[in-house]
Amino acid sequence: MKRIMLLTAYDGTQYHGFQVQPNLRTVEGVLNQTLSELLKEEIIVIGASRTDTGVHAEGNVAVFDTETKIPPEKIALALNQRLPEDLVIQKSIEVPINFHPRHTNCRKTYEYRIYNHVVPNPLLRRDTYFYYRPLDVSAMQEAASFLVGTKDFSSFCAAGTQVVDKVRTIDCLEVKRKGDLITIQITGNGFLYNMVRIITGTLILVGIHTIIPEDMKKIIQAEDRKMAGPTAPAKGLVLKKIQYEEAELSLEKSHL
Amino acid sequence: MKRIMLLTAYDGTQYHGFQVQPNLRTVEGVLNQTLSELLKEEIIVIGASRTDTGVHAEGNVAVFDTETKIPPEKIALALNQRLPEDLVIQKSIEVPINFHPRHTNCRKTYEYRIYNHVVPNPLLRRDTYFYYRPLDVSAMQEAASFLVGTKDFSSFCAAGTQVVDKVRTIDCLEVKRKGDLITIQITGNGFLYNMVRIITGTLILVGIHTIIPEDMKKIIQAEDRKMAGPTAPAKGLVLKKIQYEEAELSLEKSHL
Repeated sequence: MKRIMLLTAYDGTQYHGFQVQPNLRTVEGVLNQTLSELLKEEIIVIGASRTDTGVHAEGNVAVFDTETKIPPEKIALALNQRLPEDLVIQKSIEVPINFHPRHTNCRKTYEYRIYNHVVPNPLLRRDTYFYYRPLDVSAMQEAASFLVGTKDFSSFCAAGTQVVDKVRTIDCLEVKRKGDLITIQITGNGFLYNMVRIITGTLILVGIHTIIPEDMKKIIQAEDRKMAGPTAPAKGLVLKKIQYEEAELSLEKSHL
Repeated sequence: MKRIMLLTAYDGTQYHGFQVQPNLRTVEGVLNQTLSELLKEEIIVIGASRTDTGVHAEGNVAVFDTETKIPPEKIALALNQRLPEDLVIQKSIEVPINFHPRHTNCRKTYEYRIYNHVVPNPLLRRDTYFYYRPLDVSAMQEAASFLVGTKDFSSFCAAGTQVVDKVRTIDCLEVKRKGDLITIQITGNGFLYNMVRIITGTLILVGIHTIIPEDMKKIIQAEDRKMAGPTAPAKGLVLKKIQYEEAELSLEKSHL
């Protein structure tokens, strides 16, 4: 028996999120079925991040246990030949049998992409949020700086979430414009439900000058979801990568 | 009667090219039908560039004549409310009644995008060509420099094309890598059938060192399609913009 880790990338448009749901197409469901067919044993993967419906990933992680004799690094190739084209395995490696992708300290990096132009771009319609009002990126960047650090992010957590401890650490939060595309990149040690999308929705309010950057302080202090902005749409969000602290896990994509 | 010019952008994945074909979904067909319904008169557009099946555009041009009283610049908005999400009008303006988008001197800019990585990226599968062998971009750039200028491009024209004069001018041809994405940007005063895709296929042969940059000279001089490389797939190609010499035509996208 060995434990295999998969580095997965997917276009979330046609998936009802990562986690298995009866009668719905999910990333986990497709992985379980395809792996079970390939390895001829029943496989149930454990995912690192249960991304929502419509959210994309370039580097989500999943592990599973298997008796297969296929070399760990060859599983990605074999799997990719059977997977649909909107789900690709970047890499497969063996990990310690007790490694759990959700119960191991890690840093996650998400990117939220906004297409900020007067009319939509049909080539970017699946993986950016089209927003036509001009956004003031330097104000957004200033507002973002108030979110960096270890704080209670209750104001940026979907109402009704059962998690008790809403303290998280954001290591890095950058807002950049390149032409009509604005990217919000955020790295932290864990995220509350909808946290990146609520942060984005709030930064957009700053970008259109509905609120000022300093208002972020009050919003954080309130620890109240109603104080923050709306939840930005799922389709603009990509889980870029997950970095585990254990040194032996090499999760970087292989570059050419 | 007035003549209206449309600046169009489309994801070519679901279109059998620009030009009308019976019983097939084409950009021109969708524009004709949607405009005719909107303006309640029979509209037939004339396109500047008859892009092939699967080729995308950010700035193709089409014109049509109409008796409508809708202000020219409002037609884009009204049309976008009726068009499918893979076809968007960037701008609509009135142009001189004798302006013809194919019989007026212009410069066109195309971009070919290659995703050069060991495994495909599902978020880029529709608008990049996935190529897994490492490409030597500096060799490709050196090879590209031989193509710039006014030359007979017979070697880079699909066999069987009826055009007699195959002399064209390439003003600019740049090959750049940013991470795993390679872009080939090419500007010229007109392009032969499949010319950008054959140039790309030939530059890829240089990128994998099957031929050397200096071989481009021999390929050009041969004036023989068989000497050049394969035709790269349509899905990596985007018509970026068309610039007409007439000063009164302001075709730039409106930026925020």
